[in-house]
This record gives sequence, C-alpha cells and structure tokens, in this order.
Amino acid sequence: MVDDFIGREDDIMNKTEPRTLSGFMELLPEEQILFDQMKEKIENTYKKYGFLPLDTPILELSEVLLAKAGGETEKQIYRFEKGDTDISMRFDLTVPLAKYVAKNYGVLSFPFRRYQIGKVYRGERTQKGRFREFYQCDIDIIGDEELDLVNDAELPKIIYSIFKDLGFKDFTICINNRKILNGLFESLEQKEASVEILRVIDKIEKIGKDAVIEELSKLQVPSNNISKILQFIEIQGTNDEKIEKLENLNIENELFKQGVYELKEVTKNIRIFGLPEENFKIDLTIARGLDYYTGTVYETFLNSYRELGSICSGGRYENLAEYYTDKKLPGVGVSIGLTRLFYKLNELNIINVNKKSIADVLIVPMIEDLQIPAKYAEKLRNIGVNTQIYLGQKKLKAKMKYADKLNIPYVIVIGEDEVQNNNAKIKNMQTGEEKNISLDTNNEEILKIIKG
Amino acid sequence: MVDDFIGREDDIMNKTEPRTLSGFMELLPEEQILFDQMKEKIENTYKKYGFLPLDTPILELSEVLLAKAGGETEKQIYRFEKGDTDISMRFDLTVPLAKYVAKNYGVLSFPFRRYQIGKVYRGERTQKGRFREFYQCDIDIIGDEELDLVNDAELPKIIYSIFKDLGFKDFTICINNRKILNGLFESLEQKEASVEILRVIDKIEKIGKDAVIEELSKLQVPSNNISKILQFIEIQGTNDEKIEKLENLNIENELFKQGVYELKEVTKNIRIFGLPEENFKIDLTIARGLDYYTGTVYETFLNSYRELGSICSGGRYENLAEYYTDKKLPGVGVSIGLTRLFYKLNELNIINVNKKSIADVLIVPMIEDLQIPAKYAEKLRNIGVNTQIYLGQKKLKAKMKYADKLNIPYVIVIGEDEVQNNNAKIKNMQTGEEKNISLDTNNEEILKIIKG
Repeated sequence: MVDDFIGREDDIMNKTEPRTLSGFMELLPEEQILFDQMKEKIENTYKKYGFLPLDTPILELSEVLLAKAGGETEKQIYRFEKGDTDISMRFDLTVPLAKYVAKNYGVLSFPFRRYQIGKVYRGERTQKGRFREFYQCDIDIIGDEELDLVNDAELPKIIYSIFKDLGFKDFTICINNRKILNGLFESLEQKEASVEILRVIDKIEKIGKDAVIEELSKLQVPSNNISKILQFIEIQGTNDEKIEKLENLNIENELFKQGVYELKEVTKNIRIFGLPEENFKIDLTIARGLDYYTGTVYETFLNSYRELGSICSGGRYENLAEYYTDKKLPGVGVSIGLTRLFYKLNELNIINVNKKSIADVLIVPMIEDLQIPAKYAEKLRNIGVNTQIYLGQKKLKAKMKYADKLNIPYVIVIGEDEVQNNNAKIKNMQTGEEKNISLDTNNEEILKIIKG
Repeated sequence: MVDDFIGREDDIMNKTEPRTLSGFMELLPEEQILFDQMKEKIENTYKKYGFLPLDTPILELSEVLLAKAGGETEKQIYRFEKGDTDISMRFDLTVPLAKYVAKNYGVLSFPFRRYQIGKVYRGERTQKGRFREFYQCDIDIIGDEELDLVNDAELPKIIYSIFKDLGFKDFTICINNRKILNGLFESLEQKEASVEILRVIDKIEKIGKDAVIEELSKLQVPSNNISKILQFIEIQGTNDEKIEKLENLNIENELFKQGVYELKEVTKNIRIFGLPEENFKIDLTIARGLDYYTGTVYETFLNSYRELGSICSGGRYENLAEYYTDKKLPGVGVSIGLTRLFYKLNELNIINVNKKSIADVLIVPMIEDLQIPAKYAEKLRNIGVNTQIYLGQKKLKAKMKYADKLNIPYVIVIGEDEVQNNNAKIKNMQTGEEKNISLDTNNEEILKIIKG
C-alpha cells in the first residue's frame, strides 16, 4: 500500500541512520518466533476457557482515556493534538475495556468474559528491561450488578494452565483478599493511613521486616498497631492453617470477616478447579495497588527467578466503569506483561534454548524447471507442513547454509538425478542424516519423518 | 497492571461519555471473532510459505520514518513531540521494514522473507469505510543486491491460497509489469509525462475510455501517441495472446522488451506454482502507484464486488532501503488492507452469515458443588474443546439464553439427577436436540458429537 505515498528523490542522497526509539522492543526473526509462540499459547489458553476477543483502538480521546487517571499517570501518557482533537495512546487495556463495556452495555452478555492482547504505551524513563511500548495480555470477567465469587477462583487455574503450557514448573500463584487488610486497618483505627501502610507492607519482600517497622513508625502508626500488623502479615503455615489463624485472630470487624470468608471460599474453589496445591499460596502481604482492587488479589512468581517480580497479577474490583456509567459493573481480571517477561526470560537464557523456525522444510531445487519442486511443496503445505522453496540461483552449499541460519529442520534437495528417479534427498539438519524418499511417498510417511 | 495508576475520586461524579474516536474500528465480540479468524487465516498462509514474523514498533523517530515521505504523506501522519523526541506513528509497514532491514542487514539471511500484520495510522478525512487506524497484512521478499524473478511468480500463488482459504471463489489476481509501460512511454518520447499519463491510465476502470482520451489530450499528449497508448492498453485476449500481441507490437525499446520478457517469465512460473488460469489475468492498465514499483505489479479483485477496488496489491521494487543504506535491496511484496476489507465484506453481509463462538461448549452447573462440572470442563479442554463453565446463580433459562446469545453451539447441563446417574444432558443449540451422555463417555465419542 506504499502507492499512496509519493517519495521525493534527490540526486545526492543523505542517508538517515536506521534506528529504533529507545524503550521500544524490536526483535530479530528468531526471537520474534519465540515471542509469538508465547503470545499464541497465552491466547489459546484464554480461548480454551471461553474468553471473547477484543481489539480496541490504540488511540482514544484524552477526555475518555484520562477520565479516571491523574497525577503520575498523566505524565507518562503519549498525548497530542491532531487537528482539534486531543488524543492519547492507551496506557493499559483496562480503561479501554471500561469504556467499551459502558458503551456497549446494552448488547453485551454478562458475565462478559473478554481477553485482549495488545500494545500499550507509557513514556517511562528508559531503563534496562523497562519498555515504553509493551504487550499486555489481559483477561477480565465483568458482571452486571454482581459477579459470583466463584469467578475469583477460576482465574488462578487459567494462570496455572498458561505457565504450564509455557513450560514452567516451579511457579507460585499467590492470593490474598484486600478486605482482610482493609478490615484489619479499620479495626486498628488506621483506616486513614491504610493506603500508606499498604504501600509499606507491599515492600516487605524487597526491604525486609526491620525497614517496614521503621517506615510504619515514621507514619505515626502506634507501636502496638505495628506489632499487630506484623503479627498479621507474618502468619505462617499451610493455606488451611493460615485461614484458621486468621479466623482465630478474633478481629471483630465485618469487612475483615467477609475477607476471610471470601479467601476461604476462593481457596476451596481453586482446589475444585484443579489447581495443584504446590502452585498456589495464600500470601497475606500482597496488596496489589492501592484503591483499585477491593477483594481477591493475585500475584505470580517464578520461584527460581523471584527477582522478576510478579509476572501475572490482578484482582477483583468493585466497579469497572464508574467514570462512564451509573451501572455497577464488578469484575475480576489478571494481566501478563509479556514484553517485559520475554525480555527477562531471554536475558536469563531460559527461552532461547530451542531455536524455532517458521518453515518446517526448505525445498532446494537444483534444476531450472520448478514444476516438481513446486508440486511437492504444495503437497507438503496441504498436509500442514510449512514449506519454503529456495528461489534463487545459488550453489547448494549456500542454500544449505541458509536453511541452517534459519534453523529450518529439514532440507529436501531436488536435482536432475532426483527428478529422473522420481525421488528426493531429505536431510535432517540437526543430525546431518540424509535419506532418499520417493516423491510419491504417502503423506503419513513424510509426516512421520518431518514431524516425528 | 492498573495498580500503577492511582485514580481520583470525587463525591459527585461527572460521567464522561464512553465514545471511540471516529475513523477507528471497534468491533463487537461476534464481529471480532470473524475478524480474528480472517487475520489468522492470512497469517497461517504466510507461515505456510515460510515467511518470518516481524513486529516493529508503532512509533518511530520522525526523522527515520519520514526520511522518504513528503507532500501528502506528511499531512496525514500522527506526529508529536514527547520530551525532546520528535515521534511519528507508522503509516505503513514498508518503511519500518526498510529501516529494519537496513539496521539488521548484517544478521539477516537473504532472501529475507518476512510477514507483518499490524495496525498503521493515517489521519485521513473521515468517510464511510475509510479508517485512520487499520490493519495491513504484508509479505515481502527482500534480496541482497539481487532477487530472482521467480519470486515475483510465487506471490500470486500465495494471494490465491489466502482468498481460497477465506472462502472466496470468484476472484482475479491481475498482473502487469511497469517496465512495459515505462518502455512504451520512452519509445513514444513521453517519458517526462509518464507519471501523469500513468495516473490517467490507472483511472480507466473508473472513468472510461473517452474520459481518458480527454485527460490525455489535456496533458498535451499528441493524438497519435494517445491512440498508441490506447491500442496498447486495450490489448485483449487470453494471457498468452496478450503476451504475443505485446511481442508483435515491435516496439524497439529495451525497457519495453525486458518488461515483456519478465511478464512472460512470471506468467510461466505462476502456472508452475499451480495458480489456476481462471484466477489470474494479465491486465496492462495496472500501474500501481507512480514511482515506487519498477517491475511486476499486482492487484486483486473480487469479481462480484469490483466496487471494493483492489483488495490485495503490491509489486516489485528496485531498492527497499535507499534512504538508510547504500546496500541495494530489491524486493517484491503484497499487502492486504484487512480493516477496510472486513468492513466492506461485513457491510455486504458476506462474512457474518455463520456466526462463530469462541467456546465450543458451555457447561451449565445446576448444583452448588462444582467438582464434577470443573473436572468435566478440564477433560474437554484437554481434548481441544474450548469450554466455558457458567459461573453464577441464574435460572436454567437465563443460562441457556446466555449460550444462545454467544452462539455457543453446545450446552451441557449438569444437575443433581445427572450427577447421581453420572451423566449429563448435552443440547445442540442449533437443532434443539438433547441427548444424555455418560460423564465417562470416551473422548472420541464426545468429539464426534461436538466437532462432528
């Protein structure tokens, strides 16, 4: 579609240096294949659980996109005017979802389960592993007026399926319930300071217990309250023991009790959905943000790489779209920050061990008439084998090198001799093994060689 | 990832109207499913032919992105400053490809075959069926210094595979060669005016022969040249007859002769690649843009819907990345403007006849303990059946209506009786047919019911 755009040509050309904006990921093909494979696995799992696809615009009216945002958010936004229109690039997939659900409320079916995988934009200071353009892979379940608590228990199972499918074994999905923390603060008459206390608690993993005590003191939290808070977040044991200990704290606060009840229910149903005990854990320190989540919250950690932080997070919220509509739309959702995850896994040499190719087979014709190579390629494609024909006049060695560089696992050479004998030479590029196959070989036999 | 963004809350809330920018497509889930299905089919075909994936940023440095652009292009660009950086949104996938290949020249393998499917941005005046954000689905084959002509013959086969796969039968891929037109103008000593003449010829389909003559006269083209040009573009007959007539024109111009040779070669190889004769046609009026394409050019038409214009176009170019590098990088490529195509097909009621769902099965538990429904859902998912469990307390009727609205083809109801008898009721939502199945039914039997 270049045609609409007319180039200008100068006699003396000044070359522009071909560079990419910093903070923007641009992969080499071999990395892109791995990235896409991860993305596809996530998408397929979302579909497997019946989530509907959504693809909202990357640009929105600033007035709409920033209806809720404020402070730090707005500074990071890519915002500009085009004509008279004040436009912003989306910084997450949740605000566009809120807009979408409010806008299409009348025609959607609730519970509305949607997934969206797309790029979002935040003009953060550039630093290693932080991106200004990155993929989020979100699922949310939105209810109309109400959303059954059992939905909170299904999400961890979905997270589990994804990371299993991505090849991870040793990971933990941590859950908590915000009502427990909020109820605790209410009972301690620390409700006013709760946002700040949560902020401190959230850091315990990073800064340690002593630093938390110090920071809480600075917030003027009375020392008997600090010890109660610590007593609380240090509750240890199995998941069931933790729930029992929470119940035994005898905190007479309705919100707290409701939170413990919900956590107990969600834990019960997580087991029913088949999530293995070793892959989830009640973690009472998790707060997830500050005023957005109101019930269940999730974080997910690769246990051998805790330094990555949570790789899949989310939770339950009271009201998705209050800035756009009076309808009460409670929801629960999680998000995977794929770009950062991929970057980190790549850096740790975790995912690039098995290089993948798009083509399963490279057909290398050593003859001029392409009739037979073309026909054979089509036969392979029709049985699901991705097949490239090397189209160009190069020596055999160069063609083999090409296959090798592209990690294509099989090369089929078709030359004069082969055509005359109605066969071809297939080479396994990894083992070097060569075999003659008849060009009439039936499909099952070829598939067996190529797909194993 | 909402957590980083702190909302502000007012006691009295002014609701913002949840609206989407005009010229930006935002689909309902049932439409999105169809859109994604088309996108996936295109992508799978590209992969089947061994094209490598690419995913370049949507934002680029203006200096880089607009190295080549000028005039009309720049007016349409979404361009803005963020900090000190002058940024533009990509308006096609070709310029980012040029940048990418120039940047990564040393590590890429040539011929470099890449596909990219992504959104591009053009701030055009809004009109029905025109979008400011739209998907392009591109493939290009880039050579290092040279690219064998046979590559030009493979692309029509790929276009053919895609539109077949999308369910179209009656479509025509039109090919031409720019050297023929340019050579003709050279021989008529109309080289200076060739860009303008091409612009007129390109319109013959729309405005008719008489208007073309009139416009050419206005361009001061001598009337004997006009008749030669018309004689040329009116060459009729089969593909082979057209080539023969071109050869018999006896135009003594090297460029013209080269063009006819290339067209003949490409036609020969198109047949070898297995493109049926009824799906391609030499069309000497096709020019495709003005100075970008230098050899083979393509346009594709749905014959019952000529008014859509070309739905897949492209061609051969001399030098992909001359604004970034001294390396000569010839290429050939085509692009499908998916957003507009989808919009038009939808408007014509062509694609939305068979509504699709993401979930193949909705499991409707009419009991409180979800153990058995959850286990059965997992069994189905493990054999490739997308399965949603209805999680919420509603009457059976409401749950069935939900499945119906989402076009989910099968509902499995699991109630008290069913659990006691270890069976379930499966309902075909289209025929209304109900059947009892044992919860132990083996996988093949269930698959037979659900996937037919």
